[in-house]
Amino acid sequence: VATAPSDIRTVHVHAATRRHGPAAHSSHTYPAHVGHDLLTRGVPHSDGTRASLGHAIIAAAHAINLTPPRRALIVHDDALPAALIAIVANALRDAGLDVATAALHADEDAKSLSSVERLLAHAIAAKLERTDCFVALGGGITGDLTGFAASIYRRGVAWCNIPTTLLAMVDASIGGKTGCNLTASGSLLKNMAGAFHDPALVLCDTASLATLPPRELVGGLAECVKHAMIERSVPAPAPAPNLAAAPPTSLWSRLEALAAEMAVSPINPASLVDLIADNLALKARVVAADPFETASDADGGRALLNLGHTFGHALETMTGLAPRSLAAPTTSAITHATPTHGLSHGEAVALGLVAASVAGTRLGTCSAELTPRVERLLTNLRLPTRVEDLSLRIDDALARLRHDKKSRAGSVRIIVPVADTSQNPPKIGLSRAFSNPTEDALRAAFEHLAT
Amino acid sequence: VATAPSDIRTVHVHAATRRHGPAAHSSHTYPAHVGHDLLTRGVPHSDGTRASLGHAIIAAAHAINLTPPRRALIVHDDALPAALIAIVANALRDAGLDVATAALHADEDAKSLSSVERLLAHAIAAKLERTDCFVALGGGITGDLTGFAASIYRRGVAWCNIPTTLLAMVDASIGGKTGCNLTASGSLLKNMAGAFHDPALVLCDTASLATLPPRELVGGLAECVKHAMIERSVPAPAPAPNLAAAPPTSLWSRLEALAAEMAVSPINPASLVDLIADNLALKARVVAADPFETASDADGGRALLNLGHTFGHALETMTGLAPRSLAAPTTSAITHATPTHGLSHGEAVALGLVAASVAGTRLGTCSAELTPRVERLLTNLRLPTRVEDLSLRIDDALARLRHDKKSRAGSVRIIVPVADTSQNPPKIGLSRAFSNPTEDALRAAFEHLAT
Repeated sequence: VATAPSDIRTVHVHAATRRHGPAAHSSHTYPAHVGHDLLTRGVPHSDGTRASLGHAIIAAAHAINLTPPRRALIVHDDALPAALIAIVANALRDAGLDVATAALHADEDAKSLSSVERLLAHAIAAKLERTDCFVALGGGITGDLTGFAASIYRRGVAWCNIPTTLLAMVDASIGGKTGCNLTASGSLLKNMAGAFHDPALVLCDTASLATLPPRELVGGLAECVKHAMIERSVPAPAPAPNLAAAPPTSLWSRLEALAAEMAVSPINPASLVDLIADNLALKARVVAADPFETASDADGGRALLNLGHTFGHALETMTGLAPRSLAAPTTSAITHATPTHGLSHGEAVALGLVAASVAGTRLGTCSAELTPRVERLLTNLRLPTRVEDLSLRIDDALARLRHDKKSRAGSVRIIVPVADTSQNPPKIGLSRAFSNPTEDALRAAFEHLAT
Repeated sequence: VATAPSDIRTVHVHAATRRHGPAAHSSHTYPAHVGHDLLTRGVPHSDGTRASLGHAIIAAAHAINLTPPRRALIVHDDALPAALIAIVANALRDAGLDVATAALHADEDAKSLSSVERLLAHAIAAKLERTDCFVALGGGITGDLTGFAASIYRRGVAWCNIPTTLLAMVDASIGGKTGCNLTASGSLLKNMAGAFHDPALVLCDTASLATLPPRELVGGLAECVKHAMIERSVPAPAPAPNLAAAPPTSLWSRLEALAAEMAVSPINPASLVDLIADNLALKARVVAADPFETASDADGGRALLNLGHTFGHALETMTGLAPRSLAAPTTSAITHATPTHGLSHGEAVALGLVAASVAGTRLGTCSAELTPRVERLLTNLRLPTRVEDLSLRIDDALARLRHDKKSRAGSVRIIVPVADTSQNPPKIGLSRAFSNPTEDALRAAFEHLAT
């Protein structure tokens, strides 16, 4: 589909963490800009003009501190094209900064405290002062590690986030969560160390999605479906003119339209600008209402973002599982080759969304007709809805779910879809927390995935 | 001197960092209680009653989170008496918590990211959840490492600080700074990684000072002299009735009275309650005005706390220096044996205060009569005012001073005393930042110490 590039969309995100500079005592927002070729075309400035990439990053760091930065450390995924790294490094140098770079082999094993220590050593070698900044260029792991290093270097310096995967753009780039895994007694504990440390600026350039493997690209769409399934449980956007305008259409409808396009042609990254911006706006509203994930179950809050994740994490940690689509896509099929290490995060989330629908049906929060609708959309987005080789391992999956770190005080808590019975057919987009679901409901959910 | 134990004094400290709980969006304070046998006598409660140590810690952690803690990890200096550790552990167990302990060999080498990682592993082994807490029991290094570990464990949990040295009580226990050193290219960079993360509660029991080596006890007095020399540059205490009352006397006068007592008998820890509380109140006012040390030079702010420290840090990092008192104390002499590794922090600060006075005189901010007055008080408090073996190493000391991390943007900035010329003799207690002092003034300061 030859979609004309959308213009640049900007979402103003309420920061969970304090800035250190002039506005230290008031709440503040930071901008997340989304656009095609954004990094080369220039970044919108609050006065309506456009700033070069380098000057936009300097202005963002300056807004955090009293002094403008003089140096920057770019932390990038070592799999990125050299040309992309050069665009960012040259833009910062052209704006007058001293620039150093550090490469990360951004896999789950690299998400360790020793990687963070290595980044801190790079920052020391680059002579970064308190008023200088980090720039993250890569996927979610790169952003998590860079933001965490920035949060503890000299007790906290500014950082800018340039996510290059769809998953990182729609999910990990905002919300302030940074961190790494810890290992204890031989087992890996995900995101056990970290900090809430908001970036000063987020730049999502859809052009960087063009070289992503298809499996990684569609993985990001699973988080978009999750957002669509919680959209109506999230506080409505504020009417203030400087906040992102309300989406003209629901996220669910937007995804159905994308799925229809995908039936006839591959995804055109330039056409994803509005989808990404609307997802960022939705996540920004969730985070603003519950910055530190401390809302009670009744209030939902940030825990809503775990829809599909409690089931998904259990599957993601199991090796040897292969995702399967319920119906083969008609054209431009993306084959789900058996992955060496199991499921990707996006695939696990897609499967988790199906599981949550099945569990919700069993628990009586939604009707049985929801699950096939979720499955249809996921399938049309080239995401899996079933898992091979799970049927004999359901007890293992249940045990892993019970050990998920999101459980509170030893009890299991999942997020389930809720049917709005005033609508027929029920509108999609309501979800809520459900504590201590029955064993029967959890088992039925995994058994459904294994059929 | 048989001083009757003062009652318990409480200082309410304005927190720099946000709490995660019910009051997440408003500023909040945390209490620092000072008393003799406080840990066994009970901790004042806001309703006027006293709580047991265990219930006080539970209440403090509960005030940070929606859920009361169920587990605590006590991190203690391995040099502490077992009885002291047992008091804290038993108090928490009696209040119903699961308690684990972790010992630290709290020297400067232990202040590393790998020590922090070890504490995090202890927390995982103890199954600490987001709503559980750390308890630090020891000196400044124990507090810095424990607070930092708490700040990043599961992206931040509550911690309580029970400082057991005078230095930690009057200086390190409040203000929110936590962290560790980093090593890069073979050189140790102090406090280069860390976080601002306020404790939920600070408990200073002067009984824990009884077993401190005399050299460590008087080391804490150097920070008290520093506070006395900046007291009148700090915003006055707020008149609100729930804040600590204005000190009835200046810190300088209080220290002169203590020095007079020390001329006739050893320090009685029970008599230090008011001194410690007044020093905490002073530091609390500095921190409230400049929580993240971002105030401009003209405003002073938290940088005032560096009085004596820029010179002191330079000396502290040099090996083989021996402190010397100008006049031998008349009674109960504390001999300054040549330390194996150089100067203690308190000794280095005392010397730095003399150096800052000499530099201030050279730079014209104060009159020449200040230095002998500072030297007299330090001497009477058994603190050194001269250094052996420095005379041939002044160039080395100057080079170290220039590399101090507090320098901004490559330039040197020191804090110097200011004479209040409206008073005769000038009253002590005013200081200010001075950027780019002359080489001559810095050299004269070190040369004075070497005479």
